[in-house]
Amino acid sequence: MSKEIPYKIYLEESEMPKAWYNLRADMAEKPAPLLDPKTHAPATLDMLSQVFCRELAEQELNETDAYIEIPQEIRDFYKMFRPSPLVRAYCLEKKLGTPAKIYYKFEGNNTSGSHKLNSAIAQAYYAKKQGLKGVTTETGAGQWGTALSMACSYFDLDCKVFMVKVSYEQKPFRREVMRTYGASVTPSPSETTAIGRKILAEHPGTGGSLGCAVSEAVETAVSSEGYRYVLGSVLNQVLLHQTVIGLETQTALRKYDIKPDVIIGCAGGGSNLGGLIAPFVGEQLRGEANYRFIAVEPASCPSLTRGRYAYDYADTGMICPLAKMYTLGADYIPAPNHAGGLRYHGMNTMLSALRAQGILEAVSYKQTEVFEAAEQFARIEGILPAPESSHAIRAAIDEALRCKETGEEKTIVFGLTGTGYFDLAGYAKYNDGALENYVPTDAELEASFSKLPQV
Amino acid sequence: MSKEIPYKIYLEESEMPKAWYNLRADMAEKPAPLLDPKTHAPATLDMLSQVFCRELAEQELNETDAYIEIPQEIRDFYKMFRPSPLVRAYCLEKKLGTPAKIYYKFEGNNTSGSHKLNSAIAQAYYAKKQGLKGVTTETGAGQWGTALSMACSYFDLDCKVFMVKVSYEQKPFRREVMRTYGASVTPSPSETTAIGRKILAEHPGTGGSLGCAVSEAVETAVSSEGYRYVLGSVLNQVLLHQTVIGLETQTALRKYDIKPDVIIGCAGGGSNLGGLIAPFVGEQLRGEANYRFIAVEPASCPSLTRGRYAYDYADTGMICPLAKMYTLGADYIPAPNHAGGLRYHGMNTMLSALRAQGILEAVSYKQTEVFEAAEQFARIEGILPAPESSHAIRAAIDEALRCKETGEEKTIVFGLTGTGYFDLAGYAKYNDGALENYVPTDAELEASFSKLPQV
Repeated sequence: MSKEIPYKIYLEESEMPKAWYNLRADMAEKPAPLLDPKTHAPATLDMLSQVFCRELAEQELNETDAYIEIPQEIRDFYKMFRPSPLVRAYCLEKKLGTPAKIYYKFEGNNTSGSHKLNSAIAQAYYAKKQGLKGVTTETGAGQWGTALSMACSYFDLDCKVFMVKVSYEQKPFRREVMRTYGASVTPSPSETTAIGRKILAEHPGTGGSLGCAVSEAVETAVSSEGYRYVLGSVLNQVLLHQTVIGLETQTALRKYDIKPDVIIGCAGGGSNLGGLIAPFVGEQLRGEANYRFIAVEPASCPSLTRGRYAYDYADTGMICPLAKMYTLGADYIPAPNHAGGLRYHGMNTMLSALRAQGILEAVSYKQTEVFEAAEQFARIEGILPAPESSHAIRAAIDEALRCKETGEEKTIVFGLTGTGYFDLAGYAKYNDGALENYVPTDAELEASFSKLPQV
Repeated sequence: MSKEIPYKIYLEESEMPKAWYNLRADMAEKPAPLLDPKTHAPATLDMLSQVFCRELAEQELNETDAYIEIPQEIRDFYKMFRPSPLVRAYCLEKKLGTPAKIYYKFEGNNTSGSHKLNSAIAQAYYAKKQGLKGVTTETGAGQWGTALSMACSYFDLDCKVFMVKVSYEQKPFRREVMRTYGASVTPSPSETTAIGRKILAEHPGTGGSLGCAVSEAVETAVSSEGYRYVLGSVLNQVLLHQTVIGLETQTALRKYDIKPDVIIGCAGGGSNLGGLIAPFVGEQLRGEANYRFIAVEPASCPSLTRGRYAYDYADTGMICPLAKMYTLGADYIPAPNHAGGLRYHGMNTMLSALRAQGILEAVSYKQTEVFEAAEQFARIEGILPAPESSHAIRAAIDEALRCKETGEEKTIVFGLTGTGYFDLAGYAKYNDGALENYVPTDAELEASFSKLPQV
């Protein structure tokens, strides 16, 4: 007989992971290597170390060690906001009338409001260990910038955030959180960098873009003594740190003899999805289990469902390494969508490889379908979800409704990456019936694919 | 040897309280009774039941039952966001260099952002049980309105919130959360009530006040078939529901053999403070333990530190029962302070009695002192606290610093009632050095006291 499952499964501190899991070590077919954007030669540790902290660059390239120890300082910080609960959605199941069992791993109970803090604290730690003065980064919606500010404040590092100007002006509260944690927040494009001045000269009054903010952050890092650039998603190092999500989930499920059938996560650059599914994919690759993995993305930015699997630039400035990934093209500008964290043209290389190998499925949803699920979830489960996370909710609800039709008692696990407390402009539009759905045409995508680099 | 204390102590579901604790039953000297505002006769169940749900009115008057069972439906809802963690502030202790041990009970990990949900769900439950269509209430800062919207959505009750007009306009995001949970939010004063129309005629363009919003909510409740009025603080029934905070804290401390010396809570109407300390005051009254209890309030609204202990009106409309309490006078308009939840002229009658009996101490702090503590706490403990909660943080830090001077290893427990995600306008002013401190003069208070009713 199985144990009674509580509403929320919390691990003991002693059950928290002591090492991150590096799935690439267990993959027979490795992801394609990063390439130098100019020479197209495989990226080297020395090359990456000019932009990133050295130990993070090592993690980026490490395809051999399946487990990488989590330093004690990071584990201590994790204890302040982890373990995160694995929640049994009893109320949602009842409301849907489904025989499916639904669980979600909730990462929103910290001031950054999302899972981003898992990697931010690791990146700040390695920067501190390397003796750096500080780090630079860009932020769009602001969750990554907030998480990094918190992490830098903890390790007493300087933190320079370039925030897309339109977000800087529209989201003053996110900015204030970062300021409260001592970060300097600069609206991008700015006069502080050469690329910023160039863009301002060419496009006076522009609201900026994520691509431009990346370029300003990288320029500032490489031109300042004692600084490196850090990034909140897309990179393998980030997915590595985020495996604390999946490892905790795995331990919690095992503790109660729960075997999931389907594991679902929203996907932008892939940080949450990769972190959640990696340990389970590992089981599957080792032949120990069989799961379905589903990535959920916005129909307005459908890299996994409609993109090309090809080498592409990771940033619009074309200064970061080339990556082989599912991409919509580095010039593709996703339509405004309130899930700002999912508006990236590409996808992490490891997840892209899993998709190409047929291990990872992908679906996309329109914005209104997502907010509909968000509202339903908020009312029933009592948590106001981030629009990004609500993509996974939508897919989980649909899966549970299919079980209702078929009578299958599937166990569904999804990642609830964060809360929507700073996304209420989107909710307001939904409440007012004013949300727009945008889906790119095939012709638009083809035009974008035609600009992919020849590698 | 004592067990190692984890960063966060979580109870098992089976350890959660099954009954609320009614401290009044254990008090030798009971709080003074509520009086009819017109006749000055003691308030009766029938009188209170016209405004409040009957079972809540019974709880308001109950001074005999020490334990009141928590209905199963409420306990099930509690499981979605409780037990809340009792956190050991290891990082704060280290930063302060104090020998004191600091714990905080964190109530902010739910979408209402505070402890308010503990009572909101109870009040919604009793309204549903009575077969009502809905409830009315007022909200200032918006935390109570949010909590009540969530609770009403869960029990499928209509929820009419009157939101002080100036807050309605300044805090559109709070309003959107309530709308997302299906509540109707009306800026007060409004054209929907007689009192609202009267005030609008007399003061066109007014931004409203909490007193006016109360009056509109009560008028709407008593004039609508199947509606009652509910309130988020001040009343004994609210403090009763909030004892889940103190009971969980007590169980968690006992589990690890921790004996607190000082218990600290912020105080507005008293809902959190009363709920946190009640079980510990009970121990003390029964001679089982000896604690210091400290209420912390804003210097701009100093009811417990500078108020009179006298009968006064609970609302500016003078329609609610008269209560004997520490008060600044029902006409006293506290200066604008970003801790909106602490801007109430009076104090719960039970807490007032404990203060008068010398059991409860009280201190006050200026706004900038409070935000200074808030920022320090956010940076070290990783949680951006509500301005209200930060009053307790300030007092706990000061107590810990005194321990540093004396070398005492005191154990300090404080209530961290909520998060500051919707209070960033206040943080912005603090970050800009633009926060003002206001402390009323003795003459101002004397003028206000002169208007206290003759009872």
